[in-house]
Amino acid sequence: MSKFAIKNGIFLTMDERQPVLRGTMVVRDGVIESIGEADAGALEGCEIIDGTHRLYMPGLVNTHSHLAMSLLRGYADDLALQVWLEEKMWPNEAKFTENDVNWASQLSMLEMLKSGTTCFVDMYDFMHVVARNAETAGMRAVLTRGMIGLVPPEQQRAKLAEARDFAKTWHNRAEGRIRAMISPHAAYTCPPDFIEQSVALAEELDLPIHTHMSETLREVEDNVREYGARPVAHLERLGVFSRPCLVAHAVHLNDDEIAILARHDVRVSHNPGSNLKLASGIARVPDLIRAGVKVSLGTDSSASNNNLDMFEEIRLAALLHKGVSGDPTAVPASTALHMGTLGGAESLWLERVGALKPGWKADFIALDIDQPHYYPHTDFVSHVVYSASSKDVTDVWVDGRRLLKNGEPTTLDEEKIKREFALCYQRLMG
Amino acid sequence: MSKFAIKNGIFLTMDERQPVLRGTMVVRDGVIESIGEADAGALEGCEIIDGTHRLYMPGLVNTHSHLAMSLLRGYADDLALQVWLEEKMWPNEAKFTENDVNWASQLSMLEMLKSGTTCFVDMYDFMHVVARNAETAGMRAVLTRGMIGLVPPEQQRAKLAEARDFAKTWHNRAEGRIRAMISPHAAYTCPPDFIEQSVALAEELDLPIHTHMSETLREVEDNVREYGARPVAHLERLGVFSRPCLVAHAVHLNDDEIAILARHDVRVSHNPGSNLKLASGIARVPDLIRAGVKVSLGTDSSASNNNLDMFEEIRLAALLHKGVSGDPTAVPASTALHMGTLGGAESLWLERVGALKPGWKADFIALDIDQPHYYPHTDFVSHVVYSASSKDVTDVWVDGRRLLKNGEPTTLDEEKIKREFALCYQRLMG
Repeated sequence: MSKFAIKNGIFLTMDERQPVLRGTMVVRDGVIESIGEADAGALEGCEIIDGTHRLYMPGLVNTHSHLAMSLLRGYADDLALQVWLEEKMWPNEAKFTENDVNWASQLSMLEMLKSGTTCFVDMYDFMHVVARNAETAGMRAVLTRGMIGLVPPEQQRAKLAEARDFAKTWHNRAEGRIRAMISPHAAYTCPPDFIEQSVALAEELDLPIHTHMSETLREVEDNVREYGARPVAHLERLGVFSRPCLVAHAVHLNDDEIAILARHDVRVSHNPGSNLKLASGIARVPDLIRAGVKVSLGTDSSASNNNLDMFEEIRLAALLHKGVSGDPTAVPASTALHMGTLGGAESLWLERVGALKPGWKADFIALDIDQPHYYPHTDFVSHVVYSASSKDVTDVWVDGRRLLKNGEPTTLDEEKIKREFALCYQRLMG
Repeated sequence: MSKFAIKNGIFLTMDERQPVLRGTMVVRDGVIESIGEADAGALEGCEIIDGTHRLYMPGLVNTHSHLAMSLLRGYADDLALQVWLEEKMWPNEAKFTENDVNWASQLSMLEMLKSGTTCFVDMYDFMHVVARNAETAGMRAVLTRGMIGLVPPEQQRAKLAEARDFAKTWHNRAEGRIRAMISPHAAYTCPPDFIEQSVALAEELDLPIHTHMSETLREVEDNVREYGARPVAHLERLGVFSRPCLVAHAVHLNDDEIAILARHDVRVSHNPGSNLKLASGIARVPDLIRAGVKVSLGTDSSASNNNLDMFEEIRLAALLHKGVSGDPTAVPASTALHMGTLGGAESLWLERVGALKPGWKADFIALDIDQPHYYPHTDFVSHVVYSASSKDVTDVWVDGRRLLKNGEPTTLDEEKIKREFALCYQRLMG
């Protein structure tokens, strides 16, 4: 049994009934036992952590990323999605080796941990390496073999077999911290029958589907030209939404499409930073939320963001839709924070993750609030959303295990990862 | 004579001919003596600073803020500008004392220094206190008494007298680090004759004018109704643009207005964070730049941002206009960086500030680039704009004086400022 308590803390709980609590939080065996007042008896045998000058909140949940692409951070900026993908990303990614994915995914985990992310989605290749690294790092991860289907049939079959094998091996492993999904990459990179085979695989394994959808206007227009339907109707017709489904981007939607997503309870990973940077557009987040669609946040990859900083995505989600709609109440601070924490966990079908409540998993982070930008010490939801920096994160716990301690990772070898990553980059470009 | 050298550094110079240099930078008596290669002789008698793992760049220039409003950070979010101003800000600001402005401006300077800002504009009240604090802090500052003219004539006269007295006392003081401007607050808060008197004062003192302009659509419509002209034509007619002029916001402009601004060389302080948060809209920055208008960046106050982090404004400027225009080349990284550094200094009519070149003032900052989000170590302009955090700033120099050393302020008493600021806030709300 392991048991510890945070004393003198301020807690952003994401519990609507009591959003901010002061006092003590007790964690036993990776689960929050109590929060708020704690009698002396509850603290017996506890390691005590002094929470003075710290704000505690649920760890951030990044619902869309491609970890290994940190190797291409800053490699090609200020280009449109299709050009960027077809001329800059794919030719380089084709050269990625298992070793590259190994070190680049670790660098990304390091970056995520240090910036307060406890749980992430990774859609990529060589996923068994990523899973092993997530297990070692101690993070919570929902992992999925991204499958581009525009390849000969035997390669399609190989990818589907790989996805099946990965999911069977890793789903619910690492004390349940790792989950799997099935990912046809996108309607524009997968022929219809390949998408149907992916749906059948998700059905067989009882897993959700994660895919890119309606990221750019060109993609929507191409889809109409090629298949006679916009992406939402197209994917619906192929059965994708018959499975629990998380789509990334969903920038270009009409009202009917929003209604279809709501009807099927399709979840949307909103990636505001990446969508702006690639000039893809601005998702209709207030309309999605009004329609009852669960909207969470993702960074997308470091090649289109160019970091994995979820505080930035939360802030962008809170700011952007106000400015675009002209409505200063669009996506209030508390909604943006929900999207980056509890809403993210819900969007990944995770249970008892994303809030600080008794009986919930102890996935949480500490911020140093003894800094000018947190003064006056008043509305901490506002401060976290509108003023905080990911660099304020001092500590990170997942399942009650301290993965970042006073800014230092406890499970990842930072110096070695940076060194090996630099070597991978050199070889890639050499 | 004081002389020091940074060795083994990487320098973002903002010099188009050689944007990134590696090597040594020598600073003598507050001025950059050389940068790049340095022969051994040049280093004689120098204090040597090892620049390994550091990126050096010009200090950031914040061209629009209201420092003392940090007292209202998080006090009222998610409201429209006029409601926010009239119901939340002004009633509280009316209670601000000289003591409040003293500590709140110091808290803001602390926040700015720690996040890499070396030079700022402050438009507010009790400006002699702000000037004294800027002098003590060692920062570069362009200061201006913000005058709301919707008051009885004797109060108007008192404000103008105060602005004159402030400018005469402080302009070019503190070894030239402090400059003054004249600020009728805005067309919507100043009657035309008061604006004309402000212009006359600026003329008399040979100072630039700084004012708010065309921040919201409502402001533009009200101006048309009340004065029969949109704000740009109105201010032009009142002689405001006959002076060197910096306007904040300039969100709602038509093509004719952009042409008028360009013709008079009116400079625009773009405040993307504040404009989004207050749902004011999105300024036509690419069009302004195309028309030849100098566009710089400002945070506006901590009450509408909610921090003074210029890295965020640079990133927003680079991201936002891509997403809105659908053009991924709109406001490239290098342009956004220019807006936050050299372009800011130019917009304030400062000479030899904002770039790392021989003969230029040694206003510069160091970032810790030995962190995951700076890997791979390739395009540092991209990394600074798209991936950096203000919290990466380790050191700040202004006029060659080290104001932040390994993250610690050398001229400001952080603990005392935070304590006194908290007391001011308690009294204000109590």
